[in-house]
Amino acid sequence: MLAVTILGNNSAIPAYGRHPTSQIVTTSDDLIMFDCGEGSQIQIMNFKIKRSRINHIFISHLHGDHYFGLIGLLSSLALLGRIQPLSVYGPAPLKEIIELQFQISNTSLPFQFTFHAIEEAGLLLDAKNYTVECFPTKHRIECWGFLVREKKQPRKINMDKLAPYDIDTALFPSLQKGEDYVAADGTVIKNDLLTDANTKAKSYAFCADTVYDEELVPIIKDVDMIYHETTYPAVLAEKATERHHSTSKQAATIALLANNSRLLIGHFSAKFEDIGQFEREAQEVFAATEIAREGTTYLV
Amino acid sequence: MLAVTILGNNSAIPAYGRHPTSQIVTTSDDLIMFDCGEGSQIQIMNFKIKRSRINHIFISHLHGDHYFGLIGLLSSLALLGRIQPLSVYGPAPLKEIIELQFQISNTSLPFQFTFHAIEEAGLLLDAKNYTVECFPTKHRIECWGFLVREKKQPRKINMDKLAPYDIDTALFPSLQKGEDYVAADGTVIKNDLLTDANTKAKSYAFCADTVYDEELVPIIKDVDMIYHETTYPAVLAEKATERHHSTSKQAATIALLANNSRLLIGHFSAKFEDIGQFEREAQEVFAATEIAREGTTYLV
Repeated sequence: MLAVTILGNNSAIPAYGRHPTSQIVTTSDDLIMFDCGEGSQIQIMNFKIKRSRINHIFISHLHGDHYFGLIGLLSSLALLGRIQPLSVYGPAPLKEIIELQFQISNTSLPFQFTFHAIEEAGLLLDAKNYTVECFPTKHRIECWGFLVREKKQPRKINMDKLAPYDIDTALFPSLQKGEDYVAADGTVIKNDLLTDANTKAKSYAFCADTVYDEELVPIIKDVDMIYHETTYPAVLAEKATERHHSTSKQAATIALLANNSRLLIGHFSAKFEDIGQFEREAQEVFAATEIAREGTTYLV
Repeated sequence: MLAVTILGNNSAIPAYGRHPTSQIVTTSDDLIMFDCGEGSQIQIMNFKIKRSRINHIFISHLHGDHYFGLIGLLSSLALLGRIQPLSVYGPAPLKEIIELQFQISNTSLPFQFTFHAIEEAGLLLDAKNYTVECFPTKHRIECWGFLVREKKQPRKINMDKLAPYDIDTALFPSLQKGEDYVAADGTVIKNDLLTDANTKAKSYAFCADTVYDEELVPIIKDVDMIYHETTYPAVLAEKATERHHSTSKQAATIALLANNSRLLIGHFSAKFEDIGQFEREAQEVFAATEIAREGTTYLV
């Protein structure tokens, strides 16, 4: 189970009812959050997301539209009496920003709060049923994308297939791992004659804020669904490069090169009331493009 | 001209569509803001308030529900290319919180930004047509209330009244100040035979977060309209005292003792969906009580 719910799809200045960046990813274990722009805790309420189930928050970079809502969310969780641990992953200075504000307001959190400073690309979180890795993107300041991968599910024992054989249940775990069965007389029964494949492990990449960068392609190659920013329409490619952002067609090109199944686009400039043009332009390059709509959940 | 527009009327946790504390005061000169909870910049857009006209922002205290929206508002004003100066008044540590975040995001403001640390009760701002004073309130941390007073308007020259006399226009300013006219022959013409009184200078007090405190009464005595928090209904008076907050009836008692004409109540606990009870309870003590409704403008 991997799904993405959009809380905010706009760039820096909120506009036309659109909010700054934030997404909730639903996994089989819990909820995780990618970025937390101002008002994210209000969007969480608007969309009836169980905030108590959020265990991990990942902040891509320290431009305000990606983290100004974090301190308010943490404060509210504290006031609500949360007790489960909560982890935040982000650029190192975020720790100081959070701690300074809690210190000044005499706030002590009732839950265990752990801050993980992101220092290099690699594995950030190894949960029961998924992992989260980070990778650098090219923006005006230090910026990280996040890649969540479901773990490969064990193969399913098929009792009908097993019926002709007399196999000890103690061997089931090895069958689930895909091993063949070796009978006492040395006969080998191929694993796929005994088990079925489980649902495919899915993956989702949140590519944060980034200039058009083909170095992302090998990192997100074959990932099922990606989110890539499209701050500007195609005609403003020069401005996009100058501001270290991307256009609709650039985002679509990355998804095409990376062989993704699906592309979500967002981080629209506040200058544009009609965001339909971003979708149309991207679809010319990569048909499976959709606007990341606030309040909508996309099943990976 | 003095009017108050409510952006947020809830206490710490946003709930039932209610937002944390923020108010815009419209004066004859410009707009000023009292507190700036998370999402205030979005409320400003929702209610079509001209953010470029806000010149002064006053922060009562450093509990997050009163200032977490400030950094986002300042960032958006910067991105929008504001050039007029902007002043923020608040407890001293707020400066560090703002500067740290701008420094980390490499933000340089395109407008002149001045931070005034509030250190003692008294005059904070002396504008053309109004003043703003601060006064301490009793809360869990350092907290300030704000009192805005229109300046007394000059008396209006009445040309009909002046007709019988031959008065040099050079004397008009002294007449507007209320001085009598002394003719060349020593005759004294009383000022009110020559001029009319202007509209009464109005006043409004924002009493921030506070426990029930009769020491506020002399400070806000005879002020036309006050806002007083009512975090809890009357039955929770003990909890209110313990949390350094007030109840509906306590707020109303302050307005009654201070001889105010009108009371706005807000900062409702997130535990209460129906806030009508707060109004009914307060009105039993002080009839001219109204809920400070988000999006509503109250003319003082």
